[in-house]
Amino acid sequence: MSQSPSLSQLQALNPFLHRHLGPDGSEQKAMLDALGVASRSELIEQTVPPGIRFNRPLELPPALDEQAALAKLAAYAAQNQLWTSLIGMGYHGTVTPTVILRNVLENPGWYTAYTPYQPEIAQGRLEALLNFQQMVIDLTGLPLANASLLDEATAAAEAMALAKRVAKSKSNAFFADEHCHPQTLSVLKTRAEGFGFELIVDVVDNLATHQVFGALLQYPDTHGEVRDLRPLIAQLHAQQALACVAADILSLAVLAPPGEFDADVVLGSTQRFGVPMGYGGPHAAYFACRDEFKRAMPGRIIGVSRDARGNTALRMALQTREQHIRREKANSNICTAQVLLANIAGFYAVYHGPEGLQRIAQRVHRLTFILAAGLEAKGLKRLNQHFFDTLTVDVGGTQAAVIESAEAAQVNLRILGRGHLGVSLDETCNEATVLRLFDIFLGVDHGLDIATLDQLAHPEGIPGTLVRRTPILSHPVFNLHHSETEMLRYLKQLENKDLALNQSMIPLGSCTMKLNASSEMIPITWPAFANLHPFVPAGQALGYKAMIDELERWLCAITGFDAICMQPNSGAQGEYAGLMAITRYHRSRQQPLRTLCLIPSSAHGTNPASAQMAGMQVVIVECDDAGNIDLADLKAKAQAAGEQLSCLMVTYPSTHGVYEEGIREICDVVHQYGGQVYMDGANLNAQVGLARPADMGADVSHMNLHKTFCIPHGGGGPGMGPIGVRAHLTPFVASHPVVPVPGLDPNNSAVSAAPWGSASILPISWMYIAMMGPQLADASEVAILSANYLASQLGGAFPVLYRGRNQRVAHECILDLRPLKAQTGISEEDVAKRLMDYGFHAPTMSFPVPGTLMVEPTESESKAELDRFIEAMLAIREEIAQVQGGNWSVEDNPLKHAPHTLADVLGGWNRPYSLEQGIAPSAHARQHKYWPAVNRVDNVYGDRNLFCACVPVEAYR
Amino acid sequence: MSQSPSLSQLQALNPFLHRHLGPDGSEQKAMLDALGVASRSELIEQTVPPGIRFNRPLELPPALDEQAALAKLAAYAAQNQLWTSLIGMGYHGTVTPTVILRNVLENPGWYTAYTPYQPEIAQGRLEALLNFQQMVIDLTGLPLANASLLDEATAAAEAMALAKRVAKSKSNAFFADEHCHPQTLSVLKTRAEGFGFELIVDVVDNLATHQVFGALLQYPDTHGEVRDLRPLIAQLHAQQALACVAADILSLAVLAPPGEFDADVVLGSTQRFGVPMGYGGPHAAYFACRDEFKRAMPGRIIGVSRDARGNTALRMALQTREQHIRREKANSNICTAQVLLANIAGFYAVYHGPEGLQRIAQRVHRLTFILAAGLEAKGLKRLNQHFFDTLTVDVGGTQAAVIESAEAAQVNLRILGRGHLGVSLDETCNEATVLRLFDIFLGVDHGLDIATLDQLAHPEGIPGTLVRRTPILSHPVFNLHHSETEMLRYLKQLENKDLALNQSMIPLGSCTMKLNASSEMIPITWPAFANLHPFVPAGQALGYKAMIDELERWLCAITGFDAICMQPNSGAQGEYAGLMAITRYHRSRQQPLRTLCLIPSSAHGTNPASAQMAGMQVVIVECDDAGNIDLADLKAKAQAAGEQLSCLMVTYPSTHGVYEEGIREICDVVHQYGGQVYMDGANLNAQVGLARPADMGADVSHMNLHKTFCIPHGGGGPGMGPIGVRAHLTPFVASHPVVPVPGLDPNNSAVSAAPWGSASILPISWMYIAMMGPQLADASEVAILSANYLASQLGGAFPVLYRGRNQRVAHECILDLRPLKAQTGISEEDVAKRLMDYGFHAPTMSFPVPGTLMVEPTESESKAELDRFIEAMLAIREEIAQVQGGNWSVEDNPLKHAPHTLADVLGGWNRPYSLEQGIAPSAHARQHKYWPAVNRVDNVYGDRNLFCACVPVEAYR
Repeated sequence: MSQSPSLSQLQALNPFLHRHLGPDGSEQKAMLDALGVASRSELIEQTVPPGIRFNRPLELPPALDEQAALAKLAAYAAQNQLWTSLIGMGYHGTVTPTVILRNVLENPGWYTAYTPYQPEIAQGRLEALLNFQQMVIDLTGLPLANASLLDEATAAAEAMALAKRVAKSKSNAFFADEHCHPQTLSVLKTRAEGFGFELIVDVVDNLATHQVFGALLQYPDTHGEVRDLRPLIAQLHAQQALACVAADILSLAVLAPPGEFDADVVLGSTQRFGVPMGYGGPHAAYFACRDEFKRAMPGRIIGVSRDARGNTALRMALQTREQHIRREKANSNICTAQVLLANIAGFYAVYHGPEGLQRIAQRVHRLTFILAAGLEAKGLKRLNQHFFDTLTVDVGGTQAAVIESAEAAQVNLRILGRGHLGVSLDETCNEATVLRLFDIFLGVDHGLDIATLDQLAHPEGIPGTLVRRTPILSHPVFNLHHSETEMLRYLKQLENKDLALNQSMIPLGSCTMKLNASSEMIPITWPAFANLHPFVPAGQALGYKAMIDELERWLCAITGFDAICMQPNSGAQGEYAGLMAITRYHRSRQQPLRTLCLIPSSAHGTNPASAQMAGMQVVIVECDDAGNIDLADLKAKAQAAGEQLSCLMVTYPSTHGVYEEGIREICDVVHQYGGQVYMDGANLNAQVGLARPADMGADVSHMNLHKTFCIPHGGGGPGMGPIGVRAHLTPFVASHPVVPVPGLDPNNSAVSAAPWGSASILPISWMYIAMMGPQLADASEVAILSANYLASQLGGAFPVLYRGRNQRVAHECILDLRPLKAQTGISEEDVAKRLMDYGFHAPTMSFPVPGTLMVEPTESESKAELDRFIEAMLAIREEIAQVQGGNWSVEDNPLKHAPHTLADVLGGWNRPYSLEQGIAPSAHARQHKYWPAVNRVDNVYGDRNLFCACVPVEAYR
Repeated sequence: MSQSPSLSQLQALNPFLHRHLGPDGSEQKAMLDALGVASRSELIEQTVPPGIRFNRPLELPPALDEQAALAKLAAYAAQNQLWTSLIGMGYHGTVTPTVILRNVLENPGWYTAYTPYQPEIAQGRLEALLNFQQMVIDLTGLPLANASLLDEATAAAEAMALAKRVAKSKSNAFFADEHCHPQTLSVLKTRAEGFGFELIVDVVDNLATHQVFGALLQYPDTHGEVRDLRPLIAQLHAQQALACVAADILSLAVLAPPGEFDADVVLGSTQRFGVPMGYGGPHAAYFACRDEFKRAMPGRIIGVSRDARGNTALRMALQTREQHIRREKANSNICTAQVLLANIAGFYAVYHGPEGLQRIAQRVHRLTFILAAGLEAKGLKRLNQHFFDTLTVDVGGTQAAVIESAEAAQVNLRILGRGHLGVSLDETCNEATVLRLFDIFLGVDHGLDIATLDQLAHPEGIPGTLVRRTPILSHPVFNLHHSETEMLRYLKQLENKDLALNQSMIPLGSCTMKLNASSEMIPITWPAFANLHPFVPAGQALGYKAMIDELERWLCAITGFDAICMQPNSGAQGEYAGLMAITRYHRSRQQPLRTLCLIPSSAHGTNPASAQMAGMQVVIVECDDAGNIDLADLKAKAQAAGEQLSCLMVTYPSTHGVYEEGIREICDVVHQYGGQVYMDGANLNAQVGLARPADMGADVSHMNLHKTFCIPHGGGGPGMGPIGVRAHLTPFVASHPVVPVPGLDPNNSAVSAAPWGSASILPISWMYIAMMGPQLADASEVAILSANYLASQLGGAFPVLYRGRNQRVAHECILDLRPLKAQTGISEEDVAKRLMDYGFHAPTMSFPVPGTLMVEPTESESKAELDRFIEAMLAIREEIAQVQGGNWSVEDNPLKHAPHTLADVLGGWNRPYSLEQGIAPSAHARQHKYWPAVNRVDNVYGDRNLFCACVPVEAYR
């Protein structure tokens, strides 16, 4: 058939690239025409400074199509071995209820949402997070909880920092029970080093011998001991120190809560509430404390407030505590939470309810009791007298034999020194598990049977004084949704309240809300990735190793760095990890005084917060009128710092959305004065394939895999922030106490709980790079094209604040609302809220410049969607003109009343504009109306009347 | 810990049962209290006639929890072997775009929806189906298409029936090309037998020698030949016969369409448009024909109409053609379509667009060309001169060796007699596949390479005269959604228009819209179930066999039958299959004159339609005032039928929602006169564990697995209708020409294309039974409890038309709206539409009694949801009272204007009731408003102005 194209012609196209990019060839052409340039490469030449251009194809394997990439990754997954892991140490087998798996974790309505900074279009996930907080409050016995932190170890470190801030004790020492989990102790060590605290790790019996500002106790401890904490807490309070308790969340369903022991802070992981172990993460940590610490509390707190109509409305409370406001005075650098995982844990509690949760805990405990009774009957000694789910058994000289039996049975135990073995049971265990353990510990001729042991009353697992007496989860939300039908509908009701990427563009500057492709998401719930304990022997995780090694090589090729550290599980953690590597580097060169950190005034708030946590003093470098770093000021301050200069933290392209021309010179200046360059990777999406951080002078940089590399935002987490380092910094990145990194000093303590951070979401970024290959550069180019197209179409109505060479912006642009606000009283917030009526999520508001909107379209938005956004923005500009012209008063107009809700419709309409103008001002809104669930939320009221637990059901009526 | 319950206490509860049931113990108690009975068993005693009670536990294994059931099924799945199947014969490897997989096939928003009988709340899937029709119209070149039929073989049979109805030829013979797929020929044989047609299977060269009313040609034929059909079609038209063409849907992207050859009907499978092979199904068949056959066309047609505001609105057109209206005069018994699969196929076309689709087809063809060129170069003869994707190769005496090589390479070829082998390539094939085939056919030393062969111009695959010249898929819908982001949002926009079980109860009498649990759905997309060709050697499908065998045993235990035939892929197909077994049984006993079928007047419309298709004459048996079969009339008619009596078709409990007391006697009467009893299984949900069809006298019965056994309705399919038979009928059920059933006469021709019907959805029912075990009876009891609770709460406002013993209803009840309509002018339709404003799907309307609503709550709805429905119905009754009282006119009230839409809100409100009363009349609606996408749809306009293709985009504005 001569008409038929040849095979080579038919295969010339790269299918996934064209799925990932929003505008197709003809749309790109139209956008280029609007910009007056002939080609994408001409635009890039106009935009990216030639001095930093990376002018070759990325050294990546050719792009695979979606099926081929999935097949390759499946082959890796098949190299992982799924043994029964009873290692414990904060990671436990769990069952994700399939209704939650399918409808939350695998549902773009949940996983593509953004952090709920715009509460009116986020009431669904805010309610889910409030449930999470209520669950934590109930289980811990403390009145205030946040939602959520990154992992138990960093939560413990946050508790230490909070203790220092609020304790009356003047001590500089923090005590940690040596029977805390080792990864927790390691992260505490890192943080104490950064803060300059003394960390005392000792047995709790010696607590009274130390003067401290706080202490971390573990309940049950890492060996499973369940101890009455009251005497220890009393000792701490006697010296005006804070008592912080890391507690197992499931155990709290049956154990008396630390809050009832007068603990000040209780924290831990919620992984075992339905979140797969995932080889270490992501999971949500919880953090609860006394009410009086609310302003010192790290992380995001969901609070109850009211909207403009006086109805109940939720939102993030006390945001002024957060690093983007307080910067170097922030309590913490924590930014990303683990919202998607916190939601799963909260829904797990909703689904099981109080009785179901307690039944799970009781069953785990009873199985442990039977195991303990059997081992005891056969004369094996246990190290922990009391227990919930964990036993530490003294097997003496038989340890090697027992381990061999366990391996033969494909069971992972915790291997401890001195002939000790640990075993932790979980929700997935049953009688067969216990019988298998009897075989392992005692040999197959043990003669024990479950039913007989089940009738015993000893050994005593939980002492009577430590049995929980107070009820949990009595709020209706935990008692109404136990049938799958009810649960499904509850999930759907919440989802329907929220606006996520599956409905419209989320043009959030600095957040890169690009496509999170289905093929990227599918592997993360494959059991071979989802169900691995992070501390399994390396031989069981060869698939993970192959995938992670390859991803590291690819990220090195993309950034130019020599090595990657996968441990930091958020962007801010990456910053911190990078700065700690710099600190250790200077110390290794006997320059411990290098502690000054230069930060441009335009930086992300996490930068100064991270620097301060790493023990650095922040020196602000000014920007010029064009938004660029003031080179003279930089030079002056670097020179002034002299031998105290540690580093510069710089974002590239800048947070002003511009490729600074002088970036190489900036880096050179810092190096000249002996400093290191930390490059914030938030804007890496404008560099991939076009420029490389290491080439332009960065020594270390974190990569937000949840921005540039397609991990979805999950409604506010998970994130991943691995760092790339040049060779001289490689020896100074984090290792891990349980899974040490070969070649690193084991004293390089950890920055996160898990060795590879949130390992189970790395397949997302792996898939993205595998499917894009060297065409990743196309994505960057289209992102730049789209941003410049927006700037060109909107710049007339809203001035673009900063532009680079040839008047081009990078991958985002800042629209300046301040002049209009001065003229009309209409603020950037009014525009942001009004966009909701048009069916859009607002751009980033007032960052990095107050009074502005920062717009980042990404490469994944079609021209049609960009045009719809442009049309909405221009229509809003017309509305502002009506106010300007006096047709509407400054108080009574569709902008000030935005967003509009069903309540407005039902409330009797007496506005100076039509109902249609109010609620459906565009053709798209009339056809595909998205309804914000509440009117504009009153932040001040919420902060003045802080309430962070579930509200009575009637409040929603 | 003495407080801790023992393990046995903790395991007493059955977790999944409590997830499946809506009301928990306390809710059930409250419902029982409202009925004035002390226990569920007391209610059942009052309700189910003692004479038919099944008084022992079902002989099923104990219930497994969700994880254990998934693990057991995964072990079965692991027994299936996924070889590369190049067998063709209508089943081909395909890639389901993952965005469609995740967001349609695995999304309850799509799979739990009902058939779009209520168009105002179904515009999303109606639009998807309209896309499907447009795609079929474009590809076939015919002006009218339906959406959709069950499989290619039954579609061919429907074409034969249509041909008989509309052809001017007086012949009673139908011709089928002997090179049609064998399963198609087999189903044609069955249908011809039922209709009494002569079926002539011969080579097409002999077509002119036969006098026929129609013919089926295959394009390309089963051996891959691509033939110019024009001369054959001309021959048919010359004798006033219809030309029907079964065409491969993908080939039509590059082949000239049969519509351009003047074909009258074109049909086929759309499986290879992204729908997994699934070991035979479910897949959607397409069916296109000339416009003048529209009233004779089988299946559902989506048409464009307008709503009460004059806006474009879609709905099912020409419903008066369907069997529920025309009954024994119906054109076909087809009822269930394959909506979910048709939607996937349509979305596949939307996602790929015209260029993408043609590229896929060209690539498959080019690979086939290269294969053909290589084999030809090496001297292997091909039987088919021209080809699209299939080659039939003469390997002569080397056949055994080639097959052995193929097996070693895990490749399935089609094995034909006389040294012939067939090979069909598909979308998943690539160069490696072709090289593997060279190795298989030629040995590894063949020396061929792809690139060289790719440069050749011969052999000619598609003759120039058969190359497609006309464009396809030019409507914007196929050209706007090619980026994944755009596709995702399009899917979401459509989903958001529809009301499915994930939002609220769908209380559809006779349809049993119960929970479709996530754990039941998860296995169907496991590759080991999804990707098997139905004709693989049995050794590759051992997992399917184990699962199906077990499911058959379980269904036997539940129904009391001796054997199950899994082949019928819908309820109506089950009826037909059962009646054909009865017919064959009578013939085997030399009683061929037994052809009269007794059917009560209350029967489903499919019953008389199926009987007529099976060659029976229908005799209607009257019902008495209480809705029961009039026993005297039955006896009289059975007696009158005498030796012509074939069977009775009876539904139990009756379609009136009542357990007829006399069912055993009814069956006895039929048996007494030598007849057989066919029990319609639509209402089996009221029997499981409480009574068994075979015990009460049924000889054969179909089971709607999509009702009682949890297969979701998919928006109007897939269904599954296996039949149970008593031993004497076992020899007469369907076998299969390609996969014969051991022990059956191979002449028992097929009723469906695939040996086990829609095999890939059987895991859903397997999971349900595995997780419920003997507690299935609890589900039946709660379904009865819920129906009686509804009847008790609503009976005062709306009379319950029929009740059984002790004034109880079965699992559903009929609310009589006729008296109110007579008094007020408010009809059952007004109530149905008004329920939408309250956020509910209407109950079944005007079936089985015109002017009524039939309500079936199922066991999966919580009391809270039942109460919400009751509240809505009572509020509606109050609204009717307002009309009754003259406060509102009969034309201008919230019932007549229902459903209300955003357009009403924006249109300026000048109604005699408030806007709130109109659009949000309940607290739930105010909190969780669901918006119908259009106002009440004008059915008459749509049928008078039939338009069944995509509408211009502007029409939606």
